[in-house]
Amino acid sequence: METLDQVTELAYALDTFYFLVSGALVMWMAAGFAMLEAGLVRAKNTTEILTKNVALFAIACIMYMLVGYNIMYPDTGNGFIPALAPSFLFGGDHSATKVLASKGETYYSGMSDFFFQVVFVATAMSIVSGAVAERMKLWAFLLFAVILTGFIYPLQGYWKWGGGFLDELGFNDFAGSGIVHLCGASAALAGVLLLGARKGKYGKDGSINAIPGANMPLATLGTFVLWLGWFGFNGGSELKISDIGEANSVAAVFVNTNMAAAGGLVAALLTARVLFGKADLTMTLNGALAGLVAITAEPLTPVPLYAVLIGAVGGLLVVFSIITLDKLRIDDPVGAISVHGVVGIWGLLAVPITNSEASIGAQLIGLGTILGWVFATSFIAWFLIKLIMGIRVSEEEEWEGVDIGECGLEAYPEFVGAKGSAT
Amino acid sequence: METLDQVTELAYALDTFYFLVSGALVMWMAAGFAMLEAGLVRAKNTTEILTKNVALFAIACIMYMLVGYNIMYPDTGNGFIPALAPSFLFGGDHSATKVLASKGETYYSGMSDFFFQVVFVATAMSIVSGAVAERMKLWAFLLFAVILTGFIYPLQGYWKWGGGFLDELGFNDFAGSGIVHLCGASAALAGVLLLGARKGKYGKDGSINAIPGANMPLATLGTFVLWLGWFGFNGGSELKISDIGEANSVAAVFVNTNMAAAGGLVAALLTARVLFGKADLTMTLNGALAGLVAITAEPLTPVPLYAVLIGAVGGLLVVFSIITLDKLRIDDPVGAISVHGVVGIWGLLAVPITNSEASIGAQLIGLGTILGWVFATSFIAWFLIKLIMGIRVSEEEEWEGVDIGECGLEAYPEFVGAKGSAT
Amino acid sequence: METLDQVTELAYALDTFYFLVSGALVMWMAAGFAMLEAGLVRAKNTTEILTKNVALFAIACIMYMLVGYNIMYPDTGNGFIPALAPSFLFGGDHSATKVLASKGETYYSGMSDFFFQVVFVATAMSIVSGAVAERMKLWAFLLFAVILTGFIYPLQGYWKWGGGFLDELGFNDFAGSGIVHLCGASAALAGVLLLGARKGKYGKDGSINAIPGANMPLATLGTFVLWLGWFGFNGGSELKISDIGEANSVAAVFVNTNMAAAGGLVAALLTARVLFGKADLTMTLNGALAGLVAITAEPLTPVPLYAVLIGAVGGLLVVFSIITLDKLRIDDPVGAISVHGVVGIWGLLAVPITNSEASIGAQLIGLGTILGWVFATSFIAWFLIKLIMGIRVSEEEEWEGVDIGECGLEAYPEFVGAKGSAT
Repeated sequence: METLDQVTELAYALDTFYFLVSGALVMWMAAGFAMLEAGLVRAKNTTEILTKNVALFAIACIMYMLVGYNIMYPDTGNGFIPALAPSFLFGGDHSATKVLASKGETYYSGMSDFFFQVVFVATAMSIVSGAVAERMKLWAFLLFAVILTGFIYPLQGYWKWGGGFLDELGFNDFAGSGIVHLCGASAALAGVLLLGARKGKYGKDGSINAIPGANMPLATLGTFVLWLGWFGFNGGSELKISDIGEANSVAAVFVNTNMAAAGGLVAALLTARVLFGKADLTMTLNGALAGLVAITAEPLTPVPLYAVLIGAVGGLLVVFSIITLDKLRIDDPVGAISVHGVVGIWGLLAVPITNSEASIGAQLIGLGTILGWVFATSFIAWFLIKLIMGIRVSEEEEWEGVDIGECGLEAYPEFVGAKGSAT
Repeated sequence: METLDQVTELAYALDTFYFLVSGALVMWMAAGFAMLEAGLVRAKNTTEILTKNVALFAIACIMYMLVGYNIMYPDTGNGFIPALAPSFLFGGDHSATKVLASKGETYYSGMSDFFFQVVFVATAMSIVSGAVAERMKLWAFLLFAVILTGFIYPLQGYWKWGGGFLDELGFNDFAGSGIVHLCGASAALAGVLLLGARKGKYGKDGSINAIPGANMPLATLGTFVLWLGWFGFNGGSELKISDIGEANSVAAVFVNTNMAAAGGLVAALLTARVLFGKADLTMTLNGALAGLVAITAEPLTPVPLYAVLIGAVGGLLVVFSIITLDKLRIDDPVGAISVHGVVGIWGLLAVPITNSEASIGAQLIGLGTILGWVFATSFIAWFLIKLIMGIRVSEEEEWEGVDIGECGLEAYPEFVGAKGSAT
Repeated sequence: METLDQVTELAYALDTFYFLVSGALVMWMAAGFAMLEAGLVRAKNTTEILTKNVALFAIACIMYMLVGYNIMYPDTGNGFIPALAPSFLFGGDHSATKVLASKGETYYSGMSDFFFQVVFVATAMSIVSGAVAERMKLWAFLLFAVILTGFIYPLQGYWKWGGGFLDELGFNDFAGSGIVHLCGASAALAGVLLLGARKGKYGKDGSINAIPGANMPLATLGTFVLWLGWFGFNGGSELKISDIGEANSVAAVFVNTNMAAAGGLVAALLTARVLFGKADLTMTLNGALAGLVAITAEPLTPVPLYAVLIGAVGGLLVVFSIITLDKLRIDDPVGAISVHGVVGIWGLLAVPITNSEASIGAQLIGLGTILGWVFATSFIAWFLIKLIMGIRVSEEEEWEGVDIGECGLEAYPEFVGAKGSAT
């Protein structure tokens, strides 16, 4: 019947549009990470961290197109390389026929699916750049980006979202507390361990020196950008909006995402107040991000009050985790391992609290698998890169700032008076 | 009939999605206020204003969830606290049943409604932070945020949007020139009167000293963010888009919102040029915001040319209002009382010009009620907070900058050479 | 039949919403240009470039409403000035009747069309401000903005998008590599030739002096904003999304837009690495923008791999173009003529590679027409403005920075230690 088909077409169009808007919001998170990290490093290392952030996004897109998407979703048989696989990428008619033949089962554009997926892999990689900031070689980092986005991320993504063994085991990870955030943090941890701490961060007498970021408004802007983008990240992960049940679900995901961020922010603000006596802005920002990471594994089933609490636990955890990592002399300039790794684990473990279909066992297997796989392969990758070209800049370059050495360009040439004033 | 139901479901989904996108844009306005205010204060008070902005957003979300939404929309009987009210928050089926039973009367997700409403209350509170910047205690401000977002705002919101007496009287306020902007400005005015001016702003000889903001690109970015977010603020306030009439209305609201901002910007630019002989950027930015505030009470009925003019009057008013408040020694570092209060009143009074269903009498009652209620209750709240814990930082802390005292963190540690240079 | 009508109404609503969201994203590009340009000029000229950017956007909106839209789309008979043309601007019923009578042919709100078009003209004008930065008089620039947005842009827009002779000739320009980007670049080139280079840029001994921008995070933010906004720019230019074929097309446009940016970025990064031995951030950012400009003439027909390559050629071209223009002593502080002009031409010429309906002949006529018309009329306009009021600030004002002279306001009053240090 013609009207039914037109309705099916409209639903297809709405779901596709929802996917594209969500994907655009996730792409915007790349700007959030760039601003957050640029705000939290010192002025002399700012151009370089910006360069890493824009370049990793481009590399992630290209590698995922060429290789990663095929690994993660082998069934879609994508045809990014025309000679290899002529498919939905060559035109609209093919998909249109398919969706009508399947009575709406294929309910959105394959291209929109790729768009939504490709910005996720960039998110995972963005997490790494902050943790290794201020001392890692630019080109070593970009080489690692090729490996993570083309191979390491897609394979573990396949295990869950591509229908692999973690999915069959009943592992739950709605939008990627594990697959995206823990993945990025595990790769970052491997890099940091091989890289070592920044000069001057940890004194020989056991002292821990705070190295303040150069630009707090940038860091705050980055957090807001991430918060906004997360509505696409979690909201889009419902994958469908075109009927009442799905629309209600997407709306619940938006509300819970927002409430968890609020809970994480307030918890970190209060915790830092108690511990340090001050309203520590960077801890507060990390608290909001922690709330977002915590709810990402299950933003649908909690009522909003529980979303606040799940986020608040994340905000509490992130403060103590940052303190603990510093005591362990694991130097993470922006707190990425704590925010995305430690709190990502919390998010995965919190799923069974509100989702009766999840089990703590499956969650533990899932997080163990992701952490193990990504850490091990990343460690090997970093290690090989270290052997081949080295991963750390020279001491002199680190002292001078990597902006000059790597990019030949200062980020704020007029603001920082005398060279070296920016310790 | 099945097809009809599927069409109803699609309309529900589209309206919900439109609501969520609009709400996300309004959430983004929080970033706009943060950047605008951070750009207009001095460097030494920047971390603190950022902290206030992120924290007030989180507080607004939590308080509105716990208390405010129930006050403002008692009929929805929301169930944010599961023990109190089991309702639409527990799942999608309930709403789905309701919408089909009502033949589409309940035409979007209740969760999306909450999401759209909660970001509005945050907007109102964001207005306050700018006016009391550079001298108010952080924790006193956050305590006030609890009161405004949980109680003061929701009650006056109920009077109009919840179906209370202002609504019955025929008071018109499409998206909140009064309920959001005048509300925020009234609370700010009460705070500023109790707080007093910044040290050095007004000389004993009657002189008025300009205190330039530290970062004009940030202030400009904030204005653009607010402009963008306002499409969600006004556009979403049509509440429905899923038929031709509603779609045309939403489109008209987008156009008028944009044109009013343009009108306000140009008017303020030219007015400042005539008065000061220069193209004053901060006045120009405030002119754009004034245009947006002015059109917010009625962005639907004017033709675009009138929208330009309504905005332009706002832009003109804001320049003279800022000058006048300075003469009255009411110190508002970012011009928030002028932009949102004085121009909010203009917006409410301009409604009858193009909307034949509005009356100047009802508009006067509405604006008087909002102004009176919010100013009086805010004054009491600020006064009690002043009694209990004080609202103003010490003179020494003000001179040194509140960033160190309140947050223990400088916003730009490497840019501002010698401490105190940023007087 | 009633259900069919309801489905038609829903499609109309979805297409309108898609148009409005796309338009909002394009409006956001104005913020992108403002941040990009503010980041790439020196601190002493930052307030002025920000003022130009916000003011040109407002002027573009007002002039296009009053004059330009009527020139470009004469058939729509818009009624922005009520006395002249009572039409769709007066209410929704007219359009509603029309769409049902036409069985859905008029498939979205006329207001949403205006909204989408008006932000395009602002984009064209934003391109100009960067190229003439740091030395052009503010009011001369704004006067030119009136002329370009009201007259020059709309007429060449009419020739293609309004159904004029270029359209009849078979000229292809999907979203405006020519009509928007080459147009802006041609106007900029005319201005730069009449204006001359910045003092100190080119030495009498033939030397070329790099004048680094003051704020790299801003420039990076601007690039990300433009990248995001471009999804609306290209994605919205499909003009319809409400059936399967259109939805697939919009999704393909999103993917190709993103991939071309990635390709341009990587190509420029590597090219700069080879030429200069460093990862030059500003070249890299311009590479991403070049990729976006290159794909804009035809973002639909290429498969993603070709989109990467089309973008990569753009990224390569932009580096050599910037170097070449400097050798020709054409001083363009932000590289706008290279990014939008040279690469815009490449984009137009690349259309026939993947679109079999396009011909190289028609593309050459189109680009010649746009370049010729816009350059000639802009040159005359700039020349007349120069005669009447002058277009260049005094040498003293240029040395001191145009912020003080034109705006009476420094952008970063606390960051730049001694005046003149920012030469």
